[in-house]
Parts: sequence; C-alpha cells; structure tokens
Amino acid sequence: MASRSIRLAVIPGDGIGPEVVDEGLKVLDAVAPSSGLAFERTSYDLGAARWHRTGETLPDSVLEELRGQDAILLGAVGDPSVPSGTLERGLLLRARFELDHYVNLRPVKLFPGVSTPLADVDPGDIDMIVVREGTEGPYTGVGGVLRKGTPHEVATQESVNTAFGVERVVRYAFEQAAARPRKKLTLVHKDNVLTFAGDLYQRVLKRVGAEYPQVSTDYVHVDAATMFFVSQPQRFDVVVTDNLFGDIITDIGAAIAGGIGLAASGNVNPDGTAPSMFEPVHGSAPDIAGQGKADPTATILSVAMLLDHLGAGDAARRVEQAVSDDLAERSGLGARSTAQIGEAIAKRVSG
Amino acid sequence: MASRSIRLAVIPGDGIGPEVVDEGLKVLDAVAPSSGLAFERTSYDLGAARWHRTGETLPDSVLEELRGQDAILLGAVGDPSVPSGTLERGLLLRARFELDHYVNLRPVKLFPGVSTPLADVDPGDIDMIVVREGTEGPYTGVGGVLRKGTPHEVATQESVNTAFGVERVVRYAFEQAAARPRKKLTLVHKDNVLTFAGDLYQRVLKRVGAEYPQVSTDYVHVDAATMFFVSQPQRFDVVVTDNLFGDIITDIGAAIAGGIGLAASGNVNPDGTAPSMFEPVHGSAPDIAGQGKADPTATILSVAMLLDHLGAGDAARRVEQAVSDDLAERSGLGARSTAQIGEAIAKRVSG
Ligand SMILES: CC(C)[C@H](C(=O)O)[C@@H](O)C(=O)O
Ligand SMILES: CC(C)[C@H](C(=O)O)[C@@H](O)C(=O)O
Repeated sequence: MASRSIRLAVIPGDGIGPEVVDEGLKVLDAVAPSSGLAFERTSYDLGAARWHRTGETLPDSVLEELRGQDAILLGAVGDPSVPSGTLERGLLLRARFELDHYVNLRPVKLFPGVSTPLADVDPGDIDMIVVREGTEGPYTGVGGVLRKGTPHEVATQESVNTAFGVERVVRYAFEQAAARPRKKLTLVHKDNVLTFAGDLYQRVLKRVGAEYPQVSTDYVHVDAATMFFVSQPQRFDVVVTDNLFGDIITDIGAAIAGGIGLAASGNVNPDGTAPSMFEPVHGSAPDIAGQGKADPTATILSVAMLLDHLGAGDAARRVEQAVSDDLAERSGLGARSTAQIGEAIAKRVSG
Repeated sequence: MASRSIRLAVIPGDGIGPEVVDEGLKVLDAVAPSSGLAFERTSYDLGAARWHRTGETLPDSVLEELRGQDAILLGAVGDPSVPSGTLERGLLLRARFELDHYVNLRPVKLFPGVSTPLADVDPGDIDMIVVREGTEGPYTGVGGVLRKGTPHEVATQESVNTAFGVERVVRYAFEQAAARPRKKLTLVHKDNVLTFAGDLYQRVLKRVGAEYPQVSTDYVHVDAATMFFVSQPQRFDVVVTDNLFGDIITDIGAAIAGGIGLAASGNVNPDGTAPSMFEPVHGSAPDIAGQGKADPTATILSVAMLLDHLGAGDAARRVEQAVSDDLAERSGLGARSTAQIGEAIAKRVSG
C-alpha cells in the first residue's frame, strides 16, 4: 500500500526518557508497515545534558525545525542537577505554548489485569478522557514579586483565560464526548471561588453545548472531583478543565488507573498549524535511569495516540490491543526489563 | 471544678447543617461538665433562608457580634436555590478572611474499622494533618473580566501571596510537626510552574525550618501529591500548602480516610485576635436534609478540635476516643439515624 510520509521529531530527553522512547519506537516500527504511514525520524538532543553544555532549553532554531515536523514524540525531561522548573518551563511548557497545544489529552482507563489502589473497581469503572486546556490559565507565567526577600514581599500568579482559548478546548471536548457511547461531558472548575474564570467556562459550556444536544453535561468543583475520582470514578466520561486543575486531576487519574507507568498523553494542536507532541505523563525518574527498570507502556500508549492523531486509527487500535493483551498477562510474568516489555508488545503488534 | 466561661457562636446553616450541629452540641454538652469549660451558646441564623429573606449573607452587625465570641461552630451552608458561590464567598470565605483564619487545619486520619476506597491500607497508614493557608493565594477574589460575553473576553484570577501570610502558616505547620512523633513536614505546591508563589513558599520553608532542626522537610508538587495520597498515604505526616491546593488535597484526604462524612476542620486564628471557627468539611447536602440520614461524625470531630483549640485537650481526646470506639463498631450496627449516632457518641463520652 502507498504510504504517507511523516516527519517525526523524537526528543528522548533525560533519565528514563531515552529507554522508554526506544521501546515506543520499536512498537512504532512494528506497526508502521501496515499503518499507511512511513516515518522519517529526526532525533533532537534536548534536556539536562544540553542545558549543562550550552545553557539552552529549547533554542529558537530548534523550535523552528520542530515546526517543520508532522509530530513529536517526547520521553521525559528533568534532572536534579538542573534548577526545578528550568526544563519544565523552558522546554515542555515552551513547546506547548509555542506550538499551540491547546488540548492536553489524557485518557484515564483501567486495563483488565492491571491493579489499582482502589478496592472494588473493575476495568469498566474507570474509562474517561480528560481534556485539559494547555495554553492558558495559571500556566501563563504572568505574575511577579515585589520586595523579594523582605518581610513585605508580595508574590503573585495570574490565571489568564480567554473566550477564544476556552471555547476551542470546550468544543474539542464536546466532539470527544459526542463520539463516545456515554456522551457525557463534565466541567471541572472551582467557580464558587474563582468566579471570573469559572463563570467564563460555565458560559462557554452552555453556549457550545447548545450545538451538541446529544451530549449531557454536568459540573463538579475540582475539590469534589478529586474525591469522586477515588470514590466514584464511574461518574466520569469526558472531563474538560483548565490547565492547572487538569494537571492535578490527571495525576490522580494515573494513580487510580494503575500508576504513572501507564499514563499516556497528547499535547494536541487540533488545527494542525503546528505539530502535536505525545509523551508519557511520568517524569525522567533519574533514580532508576539506565537500569532497564522503567515501564515503557505509557510511551507505547502515547505512540498509539500519535498514530490516532495522524489518522492511522487502525494501527492505533492494534497498539492499544497489544498493550491491553500484554497487561492482562503481566501479573503472571514476573519482572521484565524495559526492553523485554517493549519487545513483547512489538511482537504482538506485528504478529 | 471551677470552669472557664466560653461564648460559643453556633451557625447551624442549611440542609443537614442543623441536624449535624444538634449532635455536635449533644456531645459537647456531655463532655463539658468535666472539661473545665462552661459554654454560653448563641445561635446565628445565617445561610440560604436568611439570604432569601433579606439578601444578607454575613451582615457587618453579625460579624461584629461574632468577633465578641470565643469560638464558632458551623454546620454547613448552601442551597441550590442560591446562586453558586454566594453563600460560600459571602459567608464562609468572608468569615475566614475577616476573622483572620489563616490556618485551615484538616486532619486526615483513618480510624480503625472505617472502610476506605483504597485497597491494602491499614489505619496507621493514613494519619496526617494538612495545614492549609486560609487567607490568601487564589482565594483573594482579585481578578476581573474584560469584554464579557464577547469573543474577545479575558477573565483573570490572581493568586496573591505575602511573606507575612506564608511565614505565619509555615511556622504553625512546623509547630504541629515538631509536636508529632514523626516530625516530618511536607510542602505541597507547584513551584516549577507557579514560580513566584512557589519560590516564596520554598524560601520561607527553608528560613523558618532553620529554627526547627528536629523537623525533617520535603517538597512534593501538588500533582504528584494527589497521586501519593492514593498510592502512598504513609508518605505524609504534616503537610503545609496554599489555600487552593489545600482545598483540593483535603478532599482527596477525606475520600481516602472514609469519606466526607468523617472529615473535620478548623479555621483557626492562632493569634486569638478573633474567634476560630470549626466545621465539618462536607456541604449542606440538601438532597438528604431532614431525613436523619446525615452522618454527624465530622461535626463531632470538629467539636473535638474546638475543645483542643480552647485548651481542653483532655476533653478533646475523650471525644475523639468515643468517636473512634463508635466507628470501630459501626459495621456491625446496621443503619442508624443522625441522632442515634450522636447519642451513642455522647453516651460514650459521659459514660
Ligand atoms: C512538568 C510539568 C511542567 C508538567 C505540567 O505541570 O503540566 C507535568 O506535570 C505534566 O502534567 O505534564
Ligand atoms: C465552600 C468552599 C468555598 C470551600 C473552599 O473552597 O474552601 C470548601 O470547599 C472547603 O473546603 O471548605
């Protein structure tokens, strides 16, 4: 079959990043021949080592190169030797903002055979998608400090929310909900306290919702939502929320769905004006780096999201199925290395 | 024994508020004679009914009366007939800000016999105190909206943090940690993104920590903290955090420690310049109001916190023990009404 050529940027990053990306690429290689896509890969050396060498996080020239790619696969960045926040803001958040990744897509799904810290839940009970806003809210970096280091210091952080930004992410969430069997969209915010931002989200939900009469909507305060994630995860189908609340609830989502080793994400630019970026939710875990202990599953599931985004839905489903089959048998398999897990899943995909 | 006279303001509020407060007061009456305290109670009619009648939430005149009291016991406020946020901001948050409740104290403790949604945890695994800042951060109401209702709308919310405000709550948290066997204090924030506010918290933690060499400190991002609450609650002893993060993580805390029916809180003014206010974390639950279905335990545990705050530590311990004993036997007791639970605990306290 004639295949469409895809330029794929790969950012292995730090710590366990390179190891898990290797396995993600193994699986991509296994599925690619029958996906209708042919990948041309370019690897970008970004992360702690580069920062130490050059002081750069995401240089303008690299950003321009990334803009010319069709998609990005990222492992993880961060190292204790780099001041907290430097790579997170300079690389990860800069990419999300510059490439207009206004949808941060985070499925929360408990696969059969995976153990969860929650008692009395079955796989069908945890199956939601969190649509987190990715380009505004409290993540803008707006704020400042006055009289630093004195007893009169004042430090501010501003959450900036626009009708433009809220509407596009809410619309995306309605589209997701409309395509799912339960067709339910829950807004998570804190509108009884964050009145200006919360009211904007509420009004947009109502206005856009009028175009999706088949989707039922409801609203949950973020504090109650965290409680329901633990006590009634069945309550959620698609969730739309702001950048910071999304950050928080998707980590609980990861915890209830088998841990951070399984949580995939997509930083998506749905308009296609710049490449989208797929990455496991976990960090670089320097403590276990280089030991073959990292679980590459989250990266492999991120590869499935990447395939989906590129229109190769069948290939995406096959990767997910292979992961699901692997997970179902894991408890009986004993400890496997990062590479062994990647190879097992790659084999299922090609086999 | 000669007893000290305490002026106690009681705000039963809406929904299940009056029912649970009745039981809290039953227990207070049972323990008072041997507590060294004599309570003079004044009830304040605040909440949805008053708002409907007069449009008032917390009138200045009532606020002035409250200032003259020694402590406040609140049930719950809120009703679907009142616009979301009206009573929360006009009454609850106004009281916290005006009475300078800069410490919002929320124990997260799993009592023996209580069922938790977490698999594989024992009571000893969940035993922490969250010290939530109560008078600044994103709760200040600072922010605004521009071009409301147009496609160019911008809505902002500002988190305002001061050295004064952060230092006093951090110092309080160190005192709590120093008094506990594990002597561990964890700062929860998001300093890699909310750099100005996060850096202020970090610097204050370090500076004040120098005065408490016996207390070990660590730092966890709020997103990771929510995950650890579910996967490794043992990790936490005392937690100090900002107003919004505290709101969120204490609801997960409630979820893991047996549900919102058991979660107590104190809005504390440690300097004694105004009365502190004790309240269950739960809301007014209008759907079950008046049916005797509400669990008064959170209110009763809030009464224990109130006693502690007033210096009646022995009485507080007795109430806690009575609650603990009652909880240990609950699973065998079948359904009991709000009043039956209150009476059973009151009896244990007096008996
Ligand atoms: C690393 C950090 C900046 C990032 C975020 O807060 O978005 C991470 O927690 C995530 O969820 O992707
Ligand atoms: C009712 C609401 C304003 C309040 C808060 O956000 O603080 C509540 O959630 C709480 O935790 O006491």
